[in-house]
Amino acid sequence: MRALRYENNYLSVSEIAEPGAAEEALVRVTRSGICNTDLEIVRGYAGFQGTLGHEFVGVVERDDDAPSLVGRRVVGEINAGCGRCTLCVTGDARHCPRRTVLGIVNRDGAHAEFLQLPAANLLPVPDEVTDERAVFTEPLAAACGIVERATVTADTRVAVIGDGKLGLLCAQALRALTGAAVTLIGKHPHKLVIAGKRDIETITLDSDKQLPRAFQQHAARFFDVVVEASGAGDGFALAIELVRPRGVLVLKSTFHGATEINGARLVVDEISVTGSRCGRFAPALDLLKRNAVDVDSLISEEYSLADGVQAMARAAASGVLKVLLRP
Amino acid sequence: MRALRYENNYLSVSEIAEPGAAEEALVRVTRSGICNTDLEIVRGYAGFQGTLGHEFVGVVERDDDAPSLVGRRVVGEINAGCGRCTLCVTGDARHCPRRTVLGIVNRDGAHAEFLQLPAANLLPVPDEVTDERAVFTEPLAAACGIVERATVTADTRVAVIGDGKLGLLCAQALRALTGAAVTLIGKHPHKLVIAGKRDIETITLDSDKQLPRAFQQHAARFFDVVVEASGAGDGFALAIELVRPRGVLVLKSTFHGATEINGARLVVDEISVTGSRCGRFAPALDLLKRNAVDVDSLISEEYSLADGVQAMARAAASGVLKVLLRP
Repeated sequence: MRALRYENNYLSVSEIAEPGAAEEALVRVTRSGICNTDLEIVRGYAGFQGTLGHEFVGVVERDDDAPSLVGRRVVGEINAGCGRCTLCVTGDARHCPRRTVLGIVNRDGAHAEFLQLPAANLLPVPDEVTDERAVFTEPLAAACGIVERATVTADTRVAVIGDGKLGLLCAQALRALTGAAVTLIGKHPHKLVIAGKRDIETITLDSDKQLPRAFQQHAARFFDVVVEASGAGDGFALAIELVRPRGVLVLKSTFHGATEINGARLVVDEISVTGSRCGRFAPALDLLKRNAVDVDSLISEEYSLADGVQAMARAAASGVLKVLLRP
Repeated sequence: MRALRYENNYLSVSEIAEPGAAEEALVRVTRSGICNTDLEIVRGYAGFQGTLGHEFVGVVERDDDAPSLVGRRVVGEINAGCGRCTLCVTGDARHCPRRTVLGIVNRDGAHAEFLQLPAANLLPVPDEVTDERAVFTEPLAAACGIVERATVTADTRVAVIGDGKLGLLCAQALRALTGAAVTLIGKHPHKLVIAGKRDIETITLDSDKQLPRAFQQHAARFFDVVVEASGAGDGFALAIELVRPRGVLVLKSTFHGATEINGARLVVDEISVTGSRCGRFAPALDLLKRNAVDVDSLISEEYSLADGVQAMARAAASGVLKVLLRP
């Protein structure tokens, strides 16, 4: 089968054998999405080698453990645990120390004609949700996962930094899930407008990446929760500027390299900096089913999997949002 | 009156006027304690100029607002708020944006014959608590304040990094307040032994600042809560090594300069890094009254205030714990 692979510092579309582990479900991928994490892996993040991709929708072709899933359209949670540790036994493999992660840690990913995952990871997709929307379940779940790491209610003042696809999903998910007042801060008016249509305040940074002066005076140390979803070092510095004493700064982007923090500021203002990675799929599927977030506007382009290398280059270009692959 | 002052990059014991604001209480200081923050201020932290010192016990000499306090032995919370913002009105001036802080922000401090504070900041010292112990109320309160920032119960696995006076107080306070199993990690056997006598596991780093190999295997990603109280950059790196996925790393030291963090590790393991500064005095006074923590062993030396400059140098020396000043 065809797969977009990163091996020996080289990205290519290759022919490899179909996955064959009998104890897992075999899924025929119908769409996959390119995530910034895929781009980071090619830059050396996580040291992964193999088939890239962890955002997908597909159809179950074979599943000996759960035959009722065969033929169903599914999405899949990407962490597969050992099944025996306390975390796995209590139903959350996301931090299992022996986990594999689809397309990220020791498990071939979704930019391929077929993938395999344990049946327990798969969730049927409601009929109302098209393939093009369902492929957003994983990143939208990651956005929803913020509420596992920080308390966000209708009274919480939230800022999201970064108007890329992750920031747009975080802002929309928090608004839709909690009713909180959400402000999205970014550099691209044509991206911010997507959030603006969903009742989210948007602020455009100027060409020097500075906040508008009037907003700056109002916003400094104003927000209860600030989500850093830009993946840039200056995004972190801006987040620190915006978060109130005893507020929470949620780090949402995985990126390669170190960030400098002013430890004294964290101590004096008793700020919490909290990492957030994967979320549960069920709330995300529910948001998609209710059409509570706009993902259609996040699709920039769709490529054939055969053109996966060009698609990755396109996904890395400035101004581009989600690039989908079709096997 | 005599005061230990830092002005124009110069530390000296000077004669200055007695404090005179009629709307605040006047306290005759009987003992003050030198904190690492005092040493950091002399290195440029916080940009403070004036009389140093924020740990003290004294006797109220004058208080027009609360005459019943006159003649009482007191300690005092160090943040004085504006009295009008939401934080102040709801009883917590610690994050008032217009606060002054004794010996740290726009308010002359405690290394002096007299100081002034609002009457609301003062707490009478129980008779059972000697001056030498009462002077530890402020740093012990700061140690107790950890439980405002991280959930610590009898089931929580806690590590404290740093066997200086702050680390010794944090380890003892958490053990005494919560019953949690606490491990204190440091470089100085003669300091660690103080905690060891209070039912705290102690681990000595080797001369390369490395953990003993057997402990390292057991301790990596083991602890629910790790308190960084060493004030050193490598303390932060060690803390990250020890904290479990979704655990909390409490930053307790204020120090001048930036710390590098591995943002990806925080995101992937969903770790929270939480600053903690000042705590409430009442729980600390209660611990001292019950003799639930050993502060006597933390006193290295006592100097006359007249010898304050030498006392500061002594407090900065390796191996020295608390240095007290006596006006």
